[in-house]
Amino acid sequence: MHAIGFIQDLAVIMAIAGIVTILCHRFKQPVVLGYIVAGVILGPHTPPFQLVEDEHTIQILAELGVIFLLFSLGLEFSIKKLFRVGVTALLAAASEIALMLWVGYEIGMFFGWSKMDSIFLGAMLAISSTTIIVKALDELGMKREKFAQLIFGILIVEDILAIGMIALLSGIATSGTVNTEDVFATLGKLSLFMIVALVLGFLIVPRLLTYVSRFKSKEMLLITVLGLCFGFCLLVVKLEYSVALGAFMIGAVMAEARQLHMIERLIEPIRDMFSAIFFVTVGLLFDPKVLSMYAMPIAVITVAVIIGKVLSCGVGTFLAGHDGRTSLRTGMGMAQIGEFSFIIAALGLTLKVTSEFLYPMVVAVSAITTLLTPYLIKLADPLSARAASAMPHGVSQFFSRYPAWLQTLQPQGDKAQMTSIVLRILMQVMVNFALVVAVFVASGYVASAIWRNWTIWGTDADMQKAIAWGSALFISLPFLIAAYRKLKALSMLLAELWVTSAHQGKARKLVSEIIPFASIMAILLIIASLSISILPPLEYVAVILIAATVLTFILWKPFVKVHARLQIALFETLNEDKNAQH
Amino acid sequence: MHAIGFIQDLAVIMAIAGIVTILCHRFKQPVVLGYIVAGVILGPHTPPFQLVEDEHTIQILAELGVIFLLFSLGLEFSIKKLFRVGVTALLAAASEIALMLWVGYEIGMFFGWSKMDSIFLGAMLAISSTTIIVKALDELGMKREKFAQLIFGILIVEDILAIGMIALLSGIATSGTVNTEDVFATLGKLSLFMIVALVLGFLIVPRLLTYVSRFKSKEMLLITVLGLCFGFCLLVVKLEYSVALGAFMIGAVMAEARQLHMIERLIEPIRDMFSAIFFVTVGLLFDPKVLSMYAMPIAVITVAVIIGKVLSCGVGTFLAGHDGRTSLRTGMGMAQIGEFSFIIAALGLTLKVTSEFLYPMVVAVSAITTLLTPYLIKLADPLSARAASAMPHGVSQFFSRYPAWLQTLQPQGDKAQMTSIVLRILMQVMVNFALVVAVFVASGYVASAIWRNWTIWGTDADMQKAIAWGSALFISLPFLIAAYRKLKALSMLLAELWVTSAHQGKARKLVSEIIPFASIMAILLIIASLSISILPPLEYVAVILIAATVLTFILWKPFVKVHARLQIALFETLNEDKNAQH
Repeated sequence: MHAIGFIQDLAVIMAIAGIVTILCHRFKQPVVLGYIVAGVILGPHTPPFQLVEDEHTIQILAELGVIFLLFSLGLEFSIKKLFRVGVTALLAAASEIALMLWVGYEIGMFFGWSKMDSIFLGAMLAISSTTIIVKALDELGMKREKFAQLIFGILIVEDILAIGMIALLSGIATSGTVNTEDVFATLGKLSLFMIVALVLGFLIVPRLLTYVSRFKSKEMLLITVLGLCFGFCLLVVKLEYSVALGAFMIGAVMAEARQLHMIERLIEPIRDMFSAIFFVTVGLLFDPKVLSMYAMPIAVITVAVIIGKVLSCGVGTFLAGHDGRTSLRTGMGMAQIGEFSFIIAALGLTLKVTSEFLYPMVVAVSAITTLLTPYLIKLADPLSARAASAMPHGVSQFFSRYPAWLQTLQPQGDKAQMTSIVLRILMQVMVNFALVVAVFVASGYVASAIWRNWTIWGTDADMQKAIAWGSALFISLPFLIAAYRKLKALSMLLAELWVTSAHQGKARKLVSEIIPFASIMAILLIIASLSISILPPLEYVAVILIAATVLTFILWKPFVKVHARLQIALFETLNEDKNAQH
Repeated sequence: MHAIGFIQDLAVIMAIAGIVTILCHRFKQPVVLGYIVAGVILGPHTPPFQLVEDEHTIQILAELGVIFLLFSLGLEFSIKKLFRVGVTALLAAASEIALMLWVGYEIGMFFGWSKMDSIFLGAMLAISSTTIIVKALDELGMKREKFAQLIFGILIVEDILAIGMIALLSGIATSGTVNTEDVFATLGKLSLFMIVALVLGFLIVPRLLTYVSRFKSKEMLLITVLGLCFGFCLLVVKLEYSVALGAFMIGAVMAEARQLHMIERLIEPIRDMFSAIFFVTVGLLFDPKVLSMYAMPIAVITVAVIIGKVLSCGVGTFLAGHDGRTSLRTGMGMAQIGEFSFIIAALGLTLKVTSEFLYPMVVAVSAITTLLTPYLIKLADPLSARAASAMPHGVSQFFSRYPAWLQTLQPQGDKAQMTSIVLRILMQVMVNFALVVAVFVASGYVASAIWRNWTIWGTDADMQKAIAWGSALFISLPFLIAAYRKLKALSMLLAELWVTSAHQGKARKLVSEIIPFASIMAILLIIASLSISILPPLEYVAVILIAATVLTFILWKPFVKVHARLQIALFETLNEDKNAQH
């Protein structure tokens, strides 16, 4: 009844946030900026004085803000959308992140900051702010224009890359070094985890939600959604990934549920409440003194963010085949940093690898670039017109011909269709292999857990390993068979295309048999190396492989059936029409 | 990033609550019961073990649950509804609360518990559970029947009385004694505060919300609503009332806003999330050992709750003129305790005046009576049929004739209209007087605050008091004039009715002048005694009163105008058609 301190905190936060936000709205600035300003007012560094008492609890609520922000970002994301935004988004996002990482790192090194500070600075500058861009485009009434659609696509790709980057940064921060091997190992493990979690998620979560929604109780649906969200976040955190990754992924999984719109409606107010608290706490950490103490770096970084993002996103968009004006507008729209920068800055602080001054500096840069965003977007049109008229003839010729020329490079008609079929098969094979690897890794964990607790289970360590490895292989058989069948189909397709009619028969047969067989062998070798902890001696392996081969021949049909059912269930989920449930 | 403990708590709470809730739904039990059972499973008293780590934060979130529960109860409440449910609800609720307070107290004393334990037990048994009744009636498909409407009316009155009771209990617990004087002083201050806060709230809050909603941002509306809610709760807590009172009142104020439906939709998920946490924490405190240790008291209290509530609510409903069957169904529906009992039990624990065992005992009684509620409602019909046939003829005659007889007692036609006019005028006068008293009390506070900090302000203490008292009187003048005018109208009306035509002129004049004048004098005397801290010596008072009289004559018209404007604004708010904004 009497947590007065905490109620006072919430009252003060919400009241000041409300007032500042109304003011921001009047002067057409994004609400987010209002929250941050409210935080600065409330913070210990500005008069009147420290207005927040129970900082521990407020920080926890702010963390809930991050979870809900990323969860609803995940809800708006969808695997299908990702495939649709395609090459432009990928090119622009990748070149933006690569450039900004490098620029940020170089700036940090130039000012003589530590290596870790510089790396984190690069990461903070890499990602633009979805929240701020959406608000700005909304207020300018440009949400439906072509360049806005491109921007949203880039933002989606950015979000994914950002999630990967956060995972990487955590790894780098704990190991203390950056080496290529680690990076690849981290990325490999991460993608493995993501593929497996997403596939299982798509199979289980939408069905569970459909079951719960049959009770027609909004309350129950909400509690289930929250239970899944926090439960998955907990799993992800226990696996030592960031909670942000977990929230985003479970959001992306629920984006495929038929109840998506209801979920969005239920989560929206909760997200708004907690994200307000999050942005206010961002302001709490801001010390205006930093502004004058680090005026130089702030100015340099601000300029770097604007020029770097306009250039990288603009060039990326242009290279993907859009005209100069659209490219410039896209680049101008992306030229700011926001919530992801704060999340990364907070990550650095909690991991205790970055210096204190980075956070307020990034807040300052974000505030300045946020303020400039609408003006930059408006500036894009006159700027591109001026650029076009000032350009030498040759250059402007190139600018206008490049997109058309690019078009001729792309596969057309039959060829385009074939390419997409090949790509799809390759992806299916990859997913199946990922699942197989996951089965072996998981059975390694399970087996070691069992060995630790029940020593009675036979005395022969080799036998134990053989049982563990054998059962993992048995569980994997349907996926291996499916991969084999898909690879075979692919090889036949490729053989059809490549092998000339002269020595048709044999060569075709060779190609169509060798590729799948070689791939399966390769995957088994990879598995063997990954499952080293449960790999029995060679003679056991030989016996198991023979048994598996026999089983494969006997159970071929049931295995194919099981796999087909799973696959159908997955596609059903992904292809469901969510708009029907508005 | 790494409050793993807390995320784990939330994950475990939400996941187990979700599962248990689905089970409860399958077996047609209210969701609330599921939350409590989830809490018991999670709690330290049952295997597997203590599953909640960061109890401090969870308790704070549970408190937010109480705030949001009562806030949305307030949103569903409305002053107009209160007037509509009328006599039946008032009679039934008052007799229920009086009887159960007494029964609870007697049971406590019988088992030899402390006086404070017994008083709190009485309070815990007094209020039925809105949440559980609404769910039960909903699931039985009886929500639209007549007795259900009666039950909702009783629940509304109960909620208000409960709020008053919580305020009283806090007072009793801190002073340690119950004496009639204190009770009346507490209730007097409480009603004064409520009237003033509601009037000011109705004038300010809906206008503010309308202003904010013009920006068409759900997020801004939500933040404003939350800011107002927590801000008002903070004020109430600072005045040493319970946060429950504050949340309920600000909810009731927002119930008159045009944006009510939007606010309800935004608050619903937040309430569901936090109230789930609240009910889970209720279960956390439950120790199954208590069940066997206190089996006897639990059995006695359960029986007392069921019989006491069926009797008091049934008789109250019957006395208000409903037939025997409806009365019995109403009584049966009310026979359980729920969220308010937990809130009161928690209040006793945090004020450290009740024993530890009370809380789990009340949880047990609530669980049992909740389980029985649907069966009791279903039992009402056969029971009333059996009772009717088993009754002696005379008694059943009485039962069937009483409602009709009661009808003849009620004022009809002109007389009824006159009664309602008189009542309305009296209420308006009361509100004006309350505002005047509030002005004097407030200026007492303000003056003493100023004196404490600025001693320079003249040296003459009497002069200071005269200024404070004089300005309070000046501010009050519009309300005093309005009260005088309304009382005069009332007296003329009464004179018209009562004074016979024989000595018409003089007597009528006498009545119509004396009543208002006497009332104003009485209120001035009351004010003098309440504002003792700023009351200047008599000669000053005389001068101020003369000045006030002169001012009154000069400024009569402007004062009347100001007051009329405020009153119109208030009525506009209260009579706004909220359904237009569905």
